[in-house]
Amino acid sequence: MRAAVRELSPSLIREVANAGIGRSDVLPFWFGESDEVTPAFIREAAIASLQAGETFYAHNLGLPELREAVARYMSDWHPAIGVDRIAITAGGVNGLMIAMQALVDPGDEVVVVTPVWPNLTAQPHILSARLRCVPLRPAGSPGGEWSLDLEVLLAAITPQTRLLVINAPNNPTGWTLSRAEQQAVLEHCRKTGTWILADEVYERLYYPDGGEEAGRVAAPSFLDVADAEDRLVVVQSFSKSFLMTGWRLGWLVMPASLTEHVGKLIEFNTSCNSVFTQRAAITALERTDELTPRLVRHLRSGRDRLVSALARLPRLQVSVPRGGMYAFFRLEGYEDSLILAKRLVAEAGLGLAPGAAFGPEARSWLRWCFASRDLDRLDRGVERLDAWLAAQSDNPRGL
Amino acid sequence: MRAAVRELSPSLIREVANAGIGRSDVLPFWFGESDEVTPAFIREAAIASLQAGETFYAHNLGLPELREAVARYMSDWHPAIGVDRIAITAGGVNGLMIAMQALVDPGDEVVVVTPVWPNLTAQPHILSARLRCVPLRPAGSPGGEWSLDLEVLLAAITPQTRLLVINAPNNPTGWTLSRAEQQAVLEHCRKTGTWILADEVYERLYYPDGGEEAGRVAAPSFLDVADAEDRLVVVQSFSKSFLMTGWRLGWLVMPASLTEHVGKLIEFNTSCNSVFTQRAAITALERTDELTPRLVRHLRSGRDRLVSALARLPRLQVSVPRGGMYAFFRLEGYEDSLILAKRLVAEAGLGLAPGAAFGPEARSWLRWCFASRDLDRLDRGVERLDAWLAAQSDNPRGL
Repeated sequence: MRAAVRELSPSLIREVANAGIGRSDVLPFWFGESDEVTPAFIREAAIASLQAGETFYAHNLGLPELREAVARYMSDWHPAIGVDRIAITAGGVNGLMIAMQALVDPGDEVVVVTPVWPNLTAQPHILSARLRCVPLRPAGSPGGEWSLDLEVLLAAITPQTRLLVINAPNNPTGWTLSRAEQQAVLEHCRKTGTWILADEVYERLYYPDGGEEAGRVAAPSFLDVADAEDRLVVVQSFSKSFLMTGWRLGWLVMPASLTEHVGKLIEFNTSCNSVFTQRAAITALERTDELTPRLVRHLRSGRDRLVSALARLPRLQVSVPRGGMYAFFRLEGYEDSLILAKRLVAEAGLGLAPGAAFGPEARSWLRWCFASRDLDRLDRGVERLDAWLAAQSDNPRGL
Repeated sequence: MRAAVRELSPSLIREVANAGIGRSDVLPFWFGESDEVTPAFIREAAIASLQAGETFYAHNLGLPELREAVARYMSDWHPAIGVDRIAITAGGVNGLMIAMQALVDPGDEVVVVTPVWPNLTAQPHILSARLRCVPLRPAGSPGGEWSLDLEVLLAAITPQTRLLVINAPNNPTGWTLSRAEQQAVLEHCRKTGTWILADEVYERLYYPDGGEEAGRVAAPSFLDVADAEDRLVVVQSFSKSFLMTGWRLGWLVMPASLTEHVGKLIEFNTSCNSVFTQRAAITALERTDELTPRLVRHLRSGRDRLVSALARLPRLQVSVPRGGMYAFFRLEGYEDSLILAKRLVAEAGLGLAPGAAFGPEARSWLRWCFASRDLDRLDRGVERLDAWLAAQSDNPRGL
């Protein structure tokens, strides 16, 4: 076996979750997934396709009808995007892997903004690239958000940098790039000849401060500032905005000149996606208005409920995330999130993801997914955390 | 974009098929796929799962129930195989890519026996490995089969060879390894420290010469001669033996010590497979006796019908394939299969795959998939070829 693969960290989130396996008394908030089933009208589209016998190989790049539906959908949210820039992939993570296979040679330098979900740093490692992580500035004070030091990032991107990988709205911090920051990053990367791989799967899960209605506005996207032939690949997924995590379907938007080559890589990685899954995705896109705005409003309620409850706990630092579906917080005095997360499973029946999974700068943080259909579950989780904290001997309230 | 990816050949099979797009008068035999829909009882298992709302993320390595069903199934055909040696992948091709990612560093030498379906040579190229092809001996005389020169293969595998990739029963030639050849290859690879990646997806599509009933006997497998901890990864697929090409589901059998690392690679490539697809696969395995023996008997009828009809054509060289679902043949006087295949589409309405797609040694050959539900289709195809040949001015019968 390759040393590069042996060295890959197994998921620290799974390590915590495994500690809770078989325990029905644990409230899990560790995975990045809503507990809501995919809407029936989407499942029914897949069922109809199966009943019609659509069980054969399909196009490498995706069903033409689905690629057209994706192009229309993306053009609703961004400047017009042609179908020749779209490829359907076996999930967002697969889209990221395909894009990296297209762009990164062994030894190439890849810059990744962290903390970030671990797949984005594991993939360059698998492809024998040189990884350079640029950390966000941690929240400095209670209520502060994680933020980008733009000068630090731009200084890290040189003509030797083949690829910049950036996930915003960010999993786990909720940090979101501003339009001005995207413009500055793009202009810099044009000069250095660096490709941008933008993981924007949370773009609809965005909670603007102003008067815009949640679900009717998307987070800033590199697609809004880039030209069609810029060195930019955007990764999207059906998982988050359409409640389709388990379907394994996503898409790429790229310069049209790249598409045929991505089609070859899809052939050699997975060949294609099943037709019945793609039929469901077409329905999801066509009827997104019946689903996504409601979902985003619900997620914002969950966010507000969870964050305000957490903020009332003593010695707890949390900010209000602008996008995504996670509260990211730390407890003063608990520096090792992996130990803390395991203790919370064992002693409080509370399942959270350890910040250490997302980068060393987040090792004292915890991620809490608020994509819960029943918002009372979030309250019950906070009560468990509160009670556990109160029982700790090092907690002043316990004296 | 990487030069390695730009250089990748697009599929020559697709190049020929594209020439027939929109032409309803073409009889297609170019793809490696039956034209029979997945049986209803398998589709119904997926439908029931969708109706039950199984739309969430699942285990990296596959549903425990499916891994157990695969282990039982493989143990029926081979020495007992533990569930800790099984990983479910997004199709056979994805299993091959995952295995190569686990085993092959950039610059490593990979030996591949050719002719072979093009994905097996493309994958090492994508991973920046050094590819060394060892060709089979072409059929020397009318009726002769492609065969392995064992000494040539063993001489090519040295301590510098990281991985041997071997597909038998072979797509496209139908060549099948004997047990003795497998034993010799394994013993040699034990000495050189070389991993064997065996693509055995056609093992059930095997037509023994003796009295055994087709469908009740499998082709020789490396699993039958290897120990559980040998450097061996076997790739299997639901596509061929279960009529599930479009479902994108396969599996790996490997040493148990490799499994956790393959689980990490699955996380970083596709994360998991959909639960409803895996439920269908469990049903397919449990009820294989209702499907596979009938399918294999039918395929053997198709093989016999096609090969005997082809053998009656003048100046046509074909052998009877022992496994797989392809007749591989050549027409004397037509050295460029890509040109010939395109002409057959345009002039005869006959869709075949050009041998050039599978390796330079097969450039004057053609592949004909006989997985046709309606065997008369095969006859109609041969009639078209016969008529086309008769119309050629260089054909003596045309004089």
